[in-house]
Amino acid sequence: MSPRFTDLVAHLPASVPFVGPETQERARGRRFRARIGANENGFGPSPLAIEAMRRAAADIWKYADPENHELREAIAARHGVRLDNVVVGEGIDGLLGLAVRLVVAPGTKVVTSLGAYPTFNFHVAGFGGDLVRVPYAHDREDWRGLLDAARQCGAALIYLANPDNPMGTWWPAADIEAMAAAVPERALVCLDEAYVDFMDASLEPRIDIESSRVIRFRTFSKAFGMAGARIGYALGPAGVMREFEKIRNHYGVNLVAQAGALASLGDAGHLPRIRSAVAAARDRIGAIVGTHGLAVLPSATNFVAVDTGRDGAFARRLLDGLLARDVFVRMPGVAPLDRTIRIGCGLDSELDVPAAELPAALDAACQT
Amino acid sequence: MSPRFTDLVAHLPASVPFVGPETQERARGRRFRARIGANENGFGPSPLAIEAMRRAAADIWKYADPENHELREAIAARHGVRLDNVVVGEGIDGLLGLAVRLVVAPGTKVVTSLGAYPTFNFHVAGFGGDLVRVPYAHDREDWRGLLDAARQCGAALIYLANPDNPMGTWWPAADIEAMAAAVPERALVCLDEAYVDFMDASLEPRIDIESSRVIRFRTFSKAFGMAGARIGYALGPAGVMREFEKIRNHYGVNLVAQAGALASLGDAGHLPRIRSAVAAARDRIGAIVGTHGLAVLPSATNFVAVDTGRDGAFARRLLDGLLARDVFVRMPGVAPLDRTIRIGCGLDSELDVPAAELPAALDAACQT
Repeated sequence: MSPRFTDLVAHLPASVPFVGPETQERARGRRFRARIGANENGFGPSPLAIEAMRRAAADIWKYADPENHELREAIAARHGVRLDNVVVGEGIDGLLGLAVRLVVAPGTKVVTSLGAYPTFNFHVAGFGGDLVRVPYAHDREDWRGLLDAARQCGAALIYLANPDNPMGTWWPAADIEAMAAAVPERALVCLDEAYVDFMDASLEPRIDIESSRVIRFRTFSKAFGMAGARIGYALGPAGVMREFEKIRNHYGVNLVAQAGALASLGDAGHLPRIRSAVAAARDRIGAIVGTHGLAVLPSATNFVAVDTGRDGAFARRLLDGLLARDVFVRMPGVAPLDRTIRIGCGLDSELDVPAAELPAALDAACQT
Repeated sequence: MSPRFTDLVAHLPASVPFVGPETQERARGRRFRARIGANENGFGPSPLAIEAMRRAAADIWKYADPENHELREAIAARHGVRLDNVVVGEGIDGLLGLAVRLVVAPGTKVVTSLGAYPTFNFHVAGFGGDLVRVPYAHDREDWRGLLDAARQCGAALIYLANPDNPMGTWWPAADIEAMAAAVPERALVCLDEAYVDFMDASLEPRIDIESSRVIRFRTFSKAFGMAGARIGYALGPAGVMREFEKIRNHYGVNLVAQAGALASLGDAGHLPRIRSAVAAARDRIGAIVGTHGLAVLPSATNFVAVDTGRDGAFARRLLDGLLARDVFVRMPGVAPLDRTIRIGCGLDSELDVPAAELPAALDAACQT
C-alpha cells in the first residue's frame, strides 16, 4: 500500500515547469550548437566573481553563513534598504516558492498573467492555491487588470514580472510605482525583477520597500551571469521578510555562490559591460530575423520575442525546425503570445547558428 | 494591515534550527580559533572535487541540468539502484523538507527521538505536523520504540539518523534492516545517513530500496567534505521519488556543487583517507578529554560526544567556557543527552586549541 501522501500532493499533476536543454540533448543524441533558449547570460559573470568562486572552492568544507550576513549588507547598501529588508535564497525560483508558502493555503486566490512565468504557477499549485489568469494587453502584463482581478476575487498574492518573461516587454517606472501604491488591502505583490538589471538603474521603479506591500525578487542568474549558482534575493517589508525565516532552508545557499555574488556586486564595471553587449546582441537578432521579414518585439531583457506574424502552430513548427538544426530556443505556451519565439542574446559565435539556420527552418515551417 | 499569512505560518515560532558560528563571531567581535562545532569535515573534499569545482566556475552562466542526470547515474551505480530511485537536492536539509511536505498536513503525526535533529522538527512544524518524541535509550535512538510509537499514534512519517547526531552512536546493519522490514503500513521512514560514509561500506545496512518504505538520505556535506556546496540525495522507491518531482525546486542545485559531487564519487581513495583521518582525530579527542577524567561515547561519526558525567547545567558551563576560549563547539539540547558536549574532528592544529583550553574551561565550570 502506498504511503499517505497529503491530499494536495496526491492530486498534483506530474508536470515540471521547464524541460532542460540537457534532457533534449540526451533525447536527440547530440548537443545543441547554440544555447540561447533559457535566458542565460552567455557573456558570463564578472571575472572577479569567477576568481572569488575559484578561491571559495577550497573553503567548501564549511557551511556558508546561514544569515548570508556579508552579502545581505552589500545588497542592502546597493538598494538603500535595511538588512532586515533582505532575504537571500536559492534563486528567485526558491524564493517565490517561499513567498507562495507564506500566504497560500488550499483555495487561496492568486492572480497572475495568462502565459507568465510557469514556475510561479507550479509553486501556487503546489500549495493548493487557486490561480486567476489575466490576459496580456498588447504583449505586456496588464498591471491594472491584475489589480482589478485581485480586488474582485480577493487575491492574497499577485505576480508581475517587470521586465516581462517571456515577452521581454516592460512598464516604465511610473507604472510600477502606481501599481505598488494601489495594491489591494492585505494582498502582497511578487514583483519579479529578474531582468531589471539589463535596464539602466535610473529607469528602475522607486518603491519605499518598508511601507509597501511589494516583495521585489532579484537574481544573480541573469545580468550577473550566474544562473548555475542558484542565488537570488528578495526585498520587502521587514515584517514580511521575518516570516521567511520561519520556513526557509537556512543552510540552502551555496558558499561558492555567496562568494561569487558578493564579488559581482563589487565590480562596478560589470553591469554596464553586460548591458552594452546585450543591446548589441538584441540588435543583431533583430537584423537576423528582419532579413527574413520577421519583426521583433521591443525588449528590455537579454532575449527577444520574434513575432512570426502567424499563429502558434506556425511558430511551433519554426521552433521545431530550429531545434532540429541545433538551436536551443523556447517559445511562450499560450495564445496570442505563442505567435512568437524567444531568441536569447549570446556571443556572436552562438548567434551565427540561428543566422545560418533560420532560412531553412522558415522554409520548412512554411511548407508544412 | 498585514498580509494574509496562512494560519500555519502565523502560528509558527520564530526560532531557527541552528545559529551559525559566523553569527556568534559577529556577536563576540572575534573569530573562533577552532571551528569544530558544526560537524563539518575540516579534512576537506577530494582534491579532484576542488579541481572540478574550479573548472565548473567558468560555466556558472549556465543553469545546471535540472534532472541532475549524470550525477544521478553515478549515484545509482554506487548504490546498485535505478535512476528513478534517486533524487538530488539542496542537501539533506532541503530533501527532508520535501519529504515532510509530501506526507505532512496539519495534524499529521510524525515520530522522532527526543533530542534528535532539530531541522527535521523545524520542517514538521512548518507543515503543521504533530511531533511525537521518543526518548533515546542508552544514548541511541530507540528504533523499536520509534516503531511502537508510530503504530500507536498512526504516524505517517518516522525519523531515524544512523549513525546518530548529536550522540555519534549507531546501530548495526541488522537492526536497521529489521527496522526497515517492520515499518507500519502506510508509514514512511526518513533514514538520515548523513554520517554513514564515515563507517566502512561493508557495515552499511542492506535495504531493497524499491520494496521498502524507507527513504535514505545521503549528503556530500560530511565525509565528502562539501558542506558549503549544499548537495545531497535521497534514495527511495520510484513511486515515492516520483512525488518529489511534483514539488521540488527543479533548478535548485548549484552547478559547481554538481561537478564537485560527481568528481568526489570518482575518487575511490577519498573515503578511506577521510575515515582514517577521522578515526585518528576521534582518538585524539578521547585522549585530550581523558587526561581530565572525562569519558567519550563510542562514535561512528566525525564528532565525539564527551560525557561530562554531570548534568546539563554543568555541560552548558563547560561549553560556554570553551566558546569564550575561542573553541566553537555545540551540545545536545535535552536531558539526558545534554550531559555531553560534542567535539568535532578536525586538523591537529584545530584540536590543539581545545587541548590547550580545556583545563581552564573545566576549572571555570567546576567553580561556578
